[in-house]
Amino acid sequence: VSINPIHEPQSALPPTLRWVGGVEGYLELIDQTRLPVELVQIACREVDEVWEAIRALRVRGAPAIGIAAAYGVCLGVQSMIGENENAFFNRLSEAATRLASARPTAVNLSWALARMARVASALRGSAAVVQIADRLLAEARQIEAEDRQMCRAMGRHGAALLRDGQGVLTHCNAGGLATADYGTALAVLFAAHEQGTRLRVYVDETRPLLQGARLTAWELQRRGIDTTLICDSMAAQVMREGRVGAIITGADRIAANGDTANKIGTYGLAVLAAAHDIPFYVAAPSSTFDLAIETGDQIPIEVRDSREITHGFGRQVAPDGIHVYNPAFDVTPARLIKAIICEHGIIEPVTYQHISQMLANRRR
Amino acid sequence: VSINPIHEPQSALPPTLRWVGGVEGYLELIDQTRLPVELVQIACREVDEVWEAIRALRVRGAPAIGIAAAYGVCLGVQSMIGENENAFFNRLSEAATRLASARPTAVNLSWALARMARVASALRGSAAVVQIADRLLAEARQIEAEDRQMCRAMGRHGAALLRDGQGVLTHCNAGGLATADYGTALAVLFAAHEQGTRLRVYVDETRPLLQGARLTAWELQRRGIDTTLICDSMAAQVMREGRVGAIITGADRIAANGDTANKIGTYGLAVLAAAHDIPFYVAAPSSTFDLAIETGDQIPIEVRDSREITHGFGRQVAPDGIHVYNPAFDVTPARLIKAIICEHGIIEPVTYQHISQMLANRRR
Repeated sequence: VSINPIHEPQSALPPTLRWVGGVEGYLELIDQTRLPVELVQIACREVDEVWEAIRALRVRGAPAIGIAAAYGVCLGVQSMIGENENAFFNRLSEAATRLASARPTAVNLSWALARMARVASALRGSAAVVQIADRLLAEARQIEAEDRQMCRAMGRHGAALLRDGQGVLTHCNAGGLATADYGTALAVLFAAHEQGTRLRVYVDETRPLLQGARLTAWELQRRGIDTTLICDSMAAQVMREGRVGAIITGADRIAANGDTANKIGTYGLAVLAAAHDIPFYVAAPSSTFDLAIETGDQIPIEVRDSREITHGFGRQVAPDGIHVYNPAFDVTPARLIKAIICEHGIIEPVTYQHISQMLANRRR
Repeated sequence: VSINPIHEPQSALPPTLRWVGGVEGYLELIDQTRLPVELVQIACREVDEVWEAIRALRVRGAPAIGIAAAYGVCLGVQSMIGENENAFFNRLSEAATRLASARPTAVNLSWALARMARVASALRGSAAVVQIADRLLAEARQIEAEDRQMCRAMGRHGAALLRDGQGVLTHCNAGGLATADYGTALAVLFAAHEQGTRLRVYVDETRPLLQGARLTAWELQRRGIDTTLICDSMAAQVMREGRVGAIITGADRIAANGDTANKIGTYGLAVLAAAHDIPFYVAAPSSTFDLAIETGDQIPIEVRDSREITHGFGRQVAPDGIHVYNPAFDVTPARLIKAIICEHGIIEPVTYQHISQMLANRRR
């Protein structure tokens, strides 16, 4: 699979991902593996290119990979627009299956694919294949547009939880680069900052792939927010020194009871937050909730290549042949989460009942 | 200051550090910044070379830097052996002051320097300068020899705390590379392993300088111990999964009440251990205790260069100009430490009274 660099923009920040053109168009996205040193966009014109971009974390963050997968479906059916309905639907199903296999933990991926499949199925037998393709592209654009609105709504709801002058700790990247707009956890910080709330933000570098150092620090710095980078192992000391009054992260999947899968290290932060009496918040849109599973025990946890740890940044840092354990996510039990910020409001306390109430009648 | 590579040994592991020759000799040490990819020894023939080696972490670990500093004093007075007593003592004092400034947190450094100064002072006026130089070298050798004995004694005492088949987590490097012999925390693991206790050891990589990945994983692997490398952010998940039944680390300075300074990340591990009901042990020789200070609040914490975090792996991993907080140590309160293993036995519970009882009548 070849991924083609397009250009390196100089000033204005391009969107995390966008569809270029009409039904015959392509998906363009920022290659996040090259940030913060290089800002490069790549074009994906095949399903396998989208699969590789998600797999290799060129595009990452639960909401963003959902949107990328939706556009991936559009790429998948492009070559079938002149074909018969069966061929079209076979190809659609093949593309969705392939894309769903890119990463296992974030539920937004399968959520977006299921939504695309539902839209197509509803038209089967009553519309021409070319119309179904049009409708799929419209649905993917709609998923993207809704994500933008959800980011703004989460920002608005969450900003009210922060006080002027407060220190806030975040982990991994739940910012504009994880969504179509300006993020989930970082949306809260951006919205507070725009309202004039002064914040001091501590960013965990987030080993092994350093999304905090490479992406979150970069996003916060670009927006003029007071930002301090730390290693993950320093978070406890930062809490002990009284430097932070709140912790906020994103999420990759939230079970019906509120147990939350997020980047490895999140669970430890939540335990440390409880020990230091610091509120721990999660910000995630409703597409991140998986009400089909009762608790976090049922969330599949991706275990990634050991070389991310031993050879991650250009030089070998561990002996040859050493055994490595590299889970990409962990699950934070609901009892450690003070509130979940979603686009509909604040879920607090985090219980099965409050979650189902907030999401009922709001689901598409 | 130039540091000269000597050779790259192929098979047998050279000592962490050793004095080569007599009074006119030099200090040879493994350059630990180049492990695990290269095993290179360097020669230090000047006080400033020892200072640089300690400062740059070519030699690190509280006991090892104490020994290196003692030999550094011997290097300092070499050029004064033909001079008068005042010139000799001025130079001695100058060398000790310089060496003491290399790193602030580990008390073994000032402990060893004070011990060397006492030995010289006791002979002032009653012995020739050349005899005092001889005596200083003998004292440095004695500090090294005692360290070897202390490692073995800590191993013996600590091994009794571990059960067959147990998982153990360690952080940073408290092994042979941190001492003259086979370590403090790792001595416990090595001794247990030698007695036939099967262990599964999890090693935190220990950002920013990766002493766990580079040094501890290498030491454990060389000794045939079942070793798994993780990122620091994965320790909580490893505990939650029930993979470890004990945590053991070294120490850089222990206050009279048992509060313990050690590599950044240790405090967080101790909090997480308490939350998972896992015993947290510290292994450290009596030279690591600083009874002159009552609590950990009085321990100076070294803050190191931000580039260790932003440029540590050979390529830039954070945006230009980002603010960084890089404390090299944290302090774990005594209440979170189940026991301290020292060469005289097990201090448990960790209280002012038990510490002073264990160390009384045993101090030199």
